[in-house]
Amino acid sequence: MQLTRYTDYAIRVLLHVGARDEGSLSSISEIASIYGISKSHLMKVVQDLGQAGFLTTVRGRNGGLKLGRDARAITIGEIVRHAEQGFDLVDCSSCIIAPACGLPNILNEATQAFLAVLDRYTLADVLSRRADLRGLFGGFQPLAKTIKRVAEKAEPDVADAERTSTDT
Amino acid sequence: MQLTRYTDYAIRVLLHVGARDEGSLSSISEIASIYGISKSHLMKVVQDLGQAGFLTTVRGRNGGLKLGRDARAITIGEIVRHAEQGFDLVDCSSCIIAPACGLPNILNEATQAFLAVLDRYTLADVLSRRADLRGLFGGFQPLAKTIKRVAEKAEPDVADAERTSTDT
Repeated sequence: MQLTRYTDYAIRVLLHVGARDEGSLSSISEIASIYGISKSHLMKVVQDLGQAGFLTTVRGRNGGLKLGRDARAITIGEIVRHAEQGFDLVDCSSCIIAPACGLPNILNEATQAFLAVLDRYTLADVLSRRADLRGLFGGFQPLAKTIKRVAEKAEPDVADAERTSTDT
Repeated sequence: MQLTRYTDYAIRVLLHVGARDEGSLSSISEIASIYGISKSHLMKVVQDLGQAGFLTTVRGRNGGLKLGRDARAITIGEIVRHAEQGFDLVDCSSCIIAPACGLPNILNEATQAFLAVLDRYTLADVLSRRADLRGLFGGFQPLAKTIKRVAEKAEPDVADAERTSTDT
């Protein structure tokens, strides 16, 4: 049993954005680089989270992403319900005994119990070790520096050349 | 969120076998034919369910499959725990923030709540509309007839030819 990769990415994005200081913004490039996830995959997730109100995009030169609401007001259940395609745990659509089978009701009851637990926790709870998370995220350098670092990673030859010319 | 196809098939097999009368046996061919599932997929599932004690194989000319234990003594939780590969709902193995992230504990608590519901129900509960299920399964003809029907399905030309020669 697994959640989709989409849900996994959605939670990762919200954790990165939520772990920052007030007024400090995340960028898609930075999130992609830190988690080792393709930027194109993240674009869709970020856009979707924005439309659903979980994220707000600040435009402009110093723009970026921030949470759409306080982390204490976003439940994990809400994120998972939004990001998952559905909760039909088995595909009964082509099963000959579906009309008389007791399984769907039982699986539905179990799924409701699963989601009820997730409804009791917020993004703030997942971020409770915030200082440790910030350390693991690399301390959140100012956005300009992060973009430079990401650009260097993407073009290591250029970065190496710059470093060599500085060394000499 | 979905259970694996393997778990789906395991439950379907146990439902087919469990819906029969005492002393009446299911065959892999019959189960494959009724659900429209490939026989080779089912072989592995049946063998595995046998090794785990959910099924017993009766050998010989009138052999087949029966439940290894009473349907009231087999919980759905037990079947799902056995058939699923695991319950790591997201793959944290490559995630940089795993050491400080609050998500795994929360997902684990939710999964335990999910399984606790499944532990409260037995195969007998899923089979509670047994008469209807038996009807949907085609009334469980004696095994010899079922094998003939399955063989006819596999070679419709031969069956048609036989039917035509009887008609004339």
